[in-house]
Amino acid sequence: MHYHFSKSFQNIGLIGRPGKASVVETLKIIYQFLLERGLRPIFDQETADLGPFDNVQISSRAHLGQMTDLVVVVGGDGSLLHAARALAKYNVPVVGVNRGRLGFLTDISPIDVLNKLGQVLDGDFIADQRFLLETEIRSQGQVIYQDIALNDIVLHSGKSVHMIDFELNIDGTYVYRQHSDGLIISSPTGSTAYALSGGGPIVHPNMDAIILVPMHPHNISSRPIVVGGQSEIKILIRDNQILPMVSPDGQNSVTLQVGDWLHIRKHPFKLTLLHPPGYDFYAACRTKLRWNQDFDSTSDEQN
Amino acid sequence: MHYHFSKSFQNIGLIGRPGKASVVETLKIIYQFLLERGLRPIFDQETADLGPFDNVQISSRAHLGQMTDLVVVVGGDGSLLHAARALAKYNVPVVGVNRGRLGFLTDISPIDVLNKLGQVLDGDFIADQRFLLETEIRSQGQVIYQDIALNDIVLHSGKSVHMIDFELNIDGTYVYRQHSDGLIISSPTGSTAYALSGGGPIVHPNMDAIILVPMHPHNISSRPIVVGGQSEIKILIRDNQILPMVSPDGQNSVTLQVGDWLHIRKHPFKLTLLHPPGYDFYAACRTKLRWNQDFDSTSDEQN
Amino acid sequence: MHYHFSKSFQNIGLIGRPGKASVVETLKIIYQFLLERGLRPIFDQETADLGPFDNVQISSRAHLGQMTDLVVVVGGDGSLLHAARALAKYNVPVVGVNRGRLGFLTDISPIDVLNKLGQVLDGDFIADQRFLLETEIRSQGQVIYQDIALNDIVLHSGKSVHMIDFELNIDGTYVYRQHSDGLIISSPTGSTAYALSGGGPIVHPNMDAIILVPMHPHNISSRPIVVGGQSEIKILIRDNQILPMVSPDGQNSVTLQVGDWLHIRKHPFKLTLLHPPGYDFYAACRTKLRWNQDFDSTSDEQN
Amino acid sequence: MHYHFSKSFQNIGLIGRPGKASVVETLKIIYQFLLERGLRPIFDQETADLGPFDNVQISSRAHLGQMTDLVVVVGGDGSLLHAARALAKYNVPVVGVNRGRLGFLTDISPIDVLNKLGQVLDGDFIADQRFLLETEIRSQGQVIYQDIALNDIVLHSGKSVHMIDFELNIDGTYVYRQHSDGLIISSPTGSTAYALSGGGPIVHPNMDAIILVPMHPHNISSRPIVVGGQSEIKILIRDNQILPMVSPDGQNSVTLQVGDWLHIRKHPFKLTLLHPPGYDFYAACRTKLRWNQDFDSTSDEQN
Repeated sequence: MHYHFSKSFQNIGLIGRPGKASVVETLKIIYQFLLERGLRPIFDQETADLGPFDNVQISSRAHLGQMTDLVVVVGGDGSLLHAARALAKYNVPVVGVNRGRLGFLTDISPIDVLNKLGQVLDGDFIADQRFLLETEIRSQGQVIYQDIALNDIVLHSGKSVHMIDFELNIDGTYVYRQHSDGLIISSPTGSTAYALSGGGPIVHPNMDAIILVPMHPHNISSRPIVVGGQSEIKILIRDNQILPMVSPDGQNSVTLQVGDWLHIRKHPFKLTLLHPPGYDFYAACRTKLRWNQDFDSTSDEQN
Repeated sequence: MHYHFSKSFQNIGLIGRPGKASVVETLKIIYQFLLERGLRPIFDQETADLGPFDNVQISSRAHLGQMTDLVVVVGGDGSLLHAARALAKYNVPVVGVNRGRLGFLTDISPIDVLNKLGQVLDGDFIADQRFLLETEIRSQGQVIYQDIALNDIVLHSGKSVHMIDFELNIDGTYVYRQHSDGLIISSPTGSTAYALSGGGPIVHPNMDAIILVPMHPHNISSRPIVVGGQSEIKILIRDNQILPMVSPDGQNSVTLQVGDWLHIRKHPFKLTLLHPPGYDFYAACRTKLRWNQDFDSTSDEQN
Repeated sequence: MHYHFSKSFQNIGLIGRPGKASVVETLKIIYQFLLERGLRPIFDQETADLGPFDNVQISSRAHLGQMTDLVVVVGGDGSLLHAARALAKYNVPVVGVNRGRLGFLTDISPIDVLNKLGQVLDGDFIADQRFLLETEIRSQGQVIYQDIALNDIVLHSGKSVHMIDFELNIDGTYVYRQHSDGLIISSPTGSTAYALSGGGPIVHPNMDAIILVPMHPHNISSRPIVVGGQSEIKILIRDNQILPMVSPDGQNSVTLQVGDWLHIRKHPFKLTLLHPPGYDFYAACRTKLRWNQDFDSTSDEQN
Repeated sequence: MHYHFSKSFQNIGLIGRPGKASVVETLKIIYQFLLERGLRPIFDQETADLGPFDNVQISSRAHLGQMTDLVVVVGGDGSLLHAARALAKYNVPVVGVNRGRLGFLTDISPIDVLNKLGQVLDGDFIADQRFLLETEIRSQGQVIYQDIALNDIVLHSGKSVHMIDFELNIDGTYVYRQHSDGLIISSPTGSTAYALSGGGPIVHPNMDAIILVPMHPHNISSRPIVVGGQSEIKILIRDNQILPMVSPDGQNSVTLQVGDWLHIRKHPFKLTLLHPPGYDFYAACRTKLRWNQDFDSTSDEQN
């Protein structure tokens, strides 16, 4: 929804993707811009180390969400995913600035970053709430692992091309036993990411839905399944030659044991993305997925 | 949800698929069963003509929903689809008896029809509400056609293999222009029917969602899209060598003109399916899509 | 293969797609160019009518192949397909000039048409032989219809969204009975056209292979099948509520009756496409399917 | 092709899948049967250890192919794959006996093993030659690894859900750069195995073709590609955060370094499978992929 906020943002967190000179350059421009507007930029520790930046205030990533009214992430969708997992619990809104091809999450390009960021700081933006998924491993009745993800929780076979064997249960009902490379459990936000590569549908980000996409299933009549956002997904790890793993947002794989249960459900906290005015999900799809390039000026010559 | 109703069904409509001796046989058994229970069976006209049945009461299909508390459809999913479109406005619940392979909608098999139907008549059933889609054609600002569907509204190229050219608009936002054989706009109920053959996801029937599945799109990065059930789908027919057509539930194709708009949205009425106790959507998927046949008794020999 | 031919082309056929002013303009430029080189351009009748062109020699499409050493087609892949079916039996090579987006078959763009066409006329080209498919309908033992196609023979349901029921037989062996919207039987040339929209693989044009792609099959474990180019494909039309049709290269649908057999095999004649030096099938795929647009100059910002 | 051989098989190798009591049981029955026919059974070492079997002759797996005229593999397709890689160089024919669900390669079921095996030993069989793929890693110009596979060579991301970045080159021509989970390079034999789970086509086993199936490609317009069996596939490993791996037939992953080239081509040796009379590839597809289960006796009730 499109808001005009009277409340002004004062403390602005800055997070940048490591390893790119262009990111540092954009961070410097934004930093200067924020100072000129009389705001208080705060770098996360890792980002400050990318500098040198002059006289910066610094916070650990873990506390950045607590100290700021708004966080600007400079990088790609992956950088924003990473930041989101640390910031979710503080309910601080996030703006994404891309340093290359536009992303689904990082939709401000460097070329008009000051203009667009200025609009957001002026309170002229679209607030876009995205839910997160949470997952836990239950081993012999004990929760031994918990994590959250914005895009997806992926159950996979870990270090090999072997298929894994598991049982899927949704809302207390047995669904199937499957041999496959794994299962992608995705939020609508993640439906345009890894789940899409696996053949999943595009699910509008405002949907209250969870998408399950089998990865290379042995039974080729397996298909992506879409269920309600309130659904409880439970996966039983059956006897496998190799031990499956779970990855939230493609990171930090953790190993599951035979007999363990992997639970996935909606997380109580949401991430608020702020987009500059004019944001349009379908326009992002057209750009990213090149839907309309059949219809250039010369399209009438198709036949 | 699982209900025990005190209210007893009294007037029971009977609809059968034409052209199958086995359907007539099952209708006779059900008819006798209803009489023995002291209920009042009413045949729809077309079904009565399949007989002879003795001393039957008859109603036109159009009025059957008005005169009955429950309608039993004997046939396949196609028969139930057809009946649903006539019955939807009366809010009369429907039970489906299949005469061959079980369907997603007709889930009582002839072999235990009396037992299962008895349970439903005793008020022991699962009531399963399915929303319908409605569609209209707007030509030069006038609504010139309206219809409803339980499974899907299909925009297609009519009588040839030519691709059609149209623009899709969802909730007032332009989505894309597409060259394809057409577009399937499906309810969750329809997601296991034609939309599935087109590569769409399985969407749980309790979801409030509409699924759009492109048919053989020229741009191969087009993908199924899932949007909220409240969405307004509008399709503009562009200049085409052939005139596209629209079909609700695979029936009654109607021709669209260049410049016409096809609108699709959720219909205000719902269809109530009654299932005998034990109904399970995922079990139906396993049976119909043969998900678990990798895991017979001998499955351990897989490698 | 890359050839330098001593033999000079003398009589050059000209075919243009009707209905585009830009096609006429390009034809005029080519016509003038050919005259200046002392060659003899011959318009096909339908193309001559697109003019006025000055003092042109004209031939019917049916005889054009007989009278010329080379034919230039100006239009899109569809125009070249159409021409190929008339020219195949004369073994006259064909050059395709596109009037918009480049095609897989029409790979000279108008902007350098004189340069590229000059190279071909100088004998500096890549000759690319493509086989055609032939089909016939056998009804009660009699051949009642025959046609050829460069891309594909499509069995389809004709005028509706109803599925059709048929049996597939390859090289005398029963393959399956199928309920679907139809079956695309494609040459490698057609593998990047309609068959690709149906989920078929890309098959290199130098392969001796036939590709079968089911269209929206009811059984979702049906998959594209690739068989040898010498294979005999036979399809039995089973009892259907509607009568299926067959279309070669998307044109001229002909109706099949219950009990008819549709036969498809490789045609004895081939089409020779001439490409200017530098032609590269995979480059065409990259351009047409936008394979590499993830890897722009800024691709390193992907995450 | 169907042969009647006068030459009688004398020395028969026996290989069984470890870990299944039923395999041992079938091996004992076959062993006894061979002795009764006056033939000379030779167990491979690993298989002999599954026993006790009485008075058996034993050979190492590496030499079994040298000492025998025929090898019987008892297990699943995986067991036969494994054996094939050891036996290929000796040109000894192989018969597969399944211990559970029939496989594409192991097509004799235990219930009629003596009857079917008797036919084969009598010289009444179909000989089915399958080519193998060979792969090598070239690092700084040196070949540092070589292996062969019957089904497929899989380039994959090894131990994580990260995508890998590589360039594909076929027959000296650049095809694309790809971000994906990897690439399956499959023989026709492998087209019904892992490549099928990845969305690849079914390629008839008598085709001289190599199939390339991208695994979860980031660019969703990537598609399976089929090229000629003589093709040279070369893959350049680009700079990756993680090191990709290669697996022949799903086994023995080996790590690739940035800048390494993975080469894949047809192997000079073939594997000869012997099938009992009546073998039919499409019948195997129907059984394994359940193509015809829509058409049970009751199929006429479909609608």
